[in-house]
Amino acid sequence: MFKRFSGATQAKEVLLAHCPPIMRTCSIACSEAAGRAVSQDIVSPVSLPGFDRAAMDGFAVKSEDTKGARPSAPVFLERFLPVRTGMEVPSDYDAVVMLEDTRLRADSLEITAEVHAYRNVSRIGEDITRGEAVFREGHVLRPPDIALLSALGIGEVQVYGRPKVVIIPTGGELVPIGERPLKTGEAYEINGLMAKLYLEKWGCDAHKLEIVSDDSEKIREAILSNLDADMIVIIGGTSVGEKDYAPRVLMETGELFVHGIRLQPGKPTAFGAVCSTTVVCLPGYPVAALAVLYQFVRPALKKMAHLSDFLPQIPVRLARKIPSRPGYLSMVRVALKDGEAEPIMVSGAGILSSVARADGFVIVPEDLEGFEEGETVSLCLFE
Amino acid sequence: MFKRFSGATQAKEVLLAHCPPIMRTCSIACSEAAGRAVSQDIVSPVSLPGFDRAAMDGFAVKSEDTKGARPSAPVFLERFLPVRTGMEVPSDYDAVVMLEDTRLRADSLEITAEVHAYRNVSRIGEDITRGEAVFREGHVLRPPDIALLSALGIGEVQVYGRPKVVIIPTGGELVPIGERPLKTGEAYEINGLMAKLYLEKWGCDAHKLEIVSDDSEKIREAILSNLDADMIVIIGGTSVGEKDYAPRVLMETGELFVHGIRLQPGKPTAFGAVCSTTVVCLPGYPVAALAVLYQFVRPALKKMAHLSDFLPQIPVRLARKIPSRPGYLSMVRVALKDGEAEPIMVSGAGILSSVARADGFVIVPEDLEGFEEGETVSLCLFE
Repeated sequence: MFKRFSGATQAKEVLLAHCPPIMRTCSIACSEAAGRAVSQDIVSPVSLPGFDRAAMDGFAVKSEDTKGARPSAPVFLERFLPVRTGMEVPSDYDAVVMLEDTRLRADSLEITAEVHAYRNVSRIGEDITRGEAVFREGHVLRPPDIALLSALGIGEVQVYGRPKVVIIPTGGELVPIGERPLKTGEAYEINGLMAKLYLEKWGCDAHKLEIVSDDSEKIREAILSNLDADMIVIIGGTSVGEKDYAPRVLMETGELFVHGIRLQPGKPTAFGAVCSTTVVCLPGYPVAALAVLYQFVRPALKKMAHLSDFLPQIPVRLARKIPSRPGYLSMVRVALKDGEAEPIMVSGAGILSSVARADGFVIVPEDLEGFEEGETVSLCLFE
Repeated sequence: MFKRFSGATQAKEVLLAHCPPIMRTCSIACSEAAGRAVSQDIVSPVSLPGFDRAAMDGFAVKSEDTKGARPSAPVFLERFLPVRTGMEVPSDYDAVVMLEDTRLRADSLEITAEVHAYRNVSRIGEDITRGEAVFREGHVLRPPDIALLSALGIGEVQVYGRPKVVIIPTGGELVPIGERPLKTGEAYEINGLMAKLYLEKWGCDAHKLEIVSDDSEKIREAILSNLDADMIVIIGGTSVGEKDYAPRVLMETGELFVHGIRLQPGKPTAFGAVCSTTVVCLPGYPVAALAVLYQFVRPALKKMAHLSDFLPQIPVRLARKIPSRPGYLSMVRVALKDGEAEPIMVSGAGILSSVARADGFVIVPEDLEGFEEGETVSLCLFE
């Protein structure tokens, strides 16, 4: 029997409570900082533009000289300077007349439009003023943000560290991917690779250890020698069988918060901690492991990384009824077909081809017994 | 004046028509193939599982021996084999009785549940059968797909090549980022970095050249020496000024399809081709460049890369009216505030801080004159 069996919502709260945002910081080159959260307010050392800048191709003029100019009553100027977009408008001038409204004469400039002061001029500091906070602590940098920092001459930024995650695959029947042909009874260790690819996508530094056999002492050692990680993800051996060591090791070595979750698939899941390292035990069945990664590990790591855990949802019509076990949160794989969501109903959490055929998943909350055919549901695409 | 002025929808069609999906392929390691489109059907060389596999911890039995077993009438077996989840069920047996329904005696196994043939057994080929097409040509691989391929012993896959894009920043006033302090009238070349970061995010191999001065011969040379690229992105010099060489060079050296688009911001944009390389001329104003990247370059490159150009949209209520120029497609930056979209109304396409303050954008289609306060609109988050 599971010792600390929990509802899915409650289990998520417990996990998130043990995953505080990472407070260590590092300084990195701006050009490498896309997707990172800045760890302090960034204040501009300069104004942008740093000078009054022409916003149009044309002629810099004194606006007072242009009074009354119009096509039927052109004005002829002697004080003017040809400028291109982006060039300085020197302090002798205060506006730019567009090229289209001018004709250059031998000894003067004919203009057919009046301009007010600072017309077609980007004034010094118009975009950013010196000393202004450009980004607040916690802002996640996107490519245009990095362009802006570069424009200000800021080459390095302080950002929060990425969560360090160590993945420990367990199971005596497992063989490293591609190492040698399988014998009967063996399988390649694929969950570790799947977890690593997702953790990297979600903003972590993920390191996968070699396979640990079903031996509580070895699992304990693997945990204890990786306590510099923010999170340890143990895969396999999480159920209540004789050789399901992982949760027991957690209980003996640190704390076990949750063991067994009303999540379908994904029931044999455990959360705990050893010292300040959070430990998640994923089920060995790949579809169950995937469900736990999405429902629990993703929001926990996004919180640690100071990132939003927003997952885009698309409203779609259900082509067929989805039944669901009451009290359980269910992650149902669905394929998009002619704009409708077709549930992929296979029983086994070991059937990875059901994910290969799925475009995404629909979550049935704990308080529902499923969705009816024709209902509009929210589809999350697999990333 | 612009020579081939176009509506935004029409311009996009023209560009996409000149951006066929890339047909060259390459073979890469599965573990590196996340996000890539496979270039041929992938057929499984093996069955998965490769043997009849226990789906539960318990005992392998002959189902016929278990007839009638129930708690009140246990059956005692002499033929049985202890198995753990994932282990082989040898051919002498055809079902697994769960551990919970058994008690091991000194000379027999007491069972309290009847099992039918193949109960709690994952049969050979249940997930994938040998010779089955696992993925069809064009499928974009996600982490669980890579896990599945690895489970099948497939270590390499044929995928379509990534679009090769060469970025050519132009402008005599530009200085490479961080090279030296700026003099008055100069600016750092930031659009090239922004474009490169987005193109890489969108699945391309992007290579940025050094800044080319405003000189039609040098721009021509830069184009001609990069015709092995699938797309060339020229930044700056795209308007109709005296020194706006890029579109003219295109017209003289290859073809100019579009010059000037009813897009706000982003009007001075050009599309063309030299030999079979598509050329996009982006405006030098960063917000305009960003609009063109999202509205045109992104769908074009996603098509070339065999990827979906789906961009998640969130329905939000507008906190204030958005006006828009009729006939123009407008990309309006908005900030999310208390769950509502607050338009950021700044006139200049040079004001990059308007993007820094924005969470995303709302598109006003060409046939609308804007949106009213309180309307529900679709927000796209900046990636």
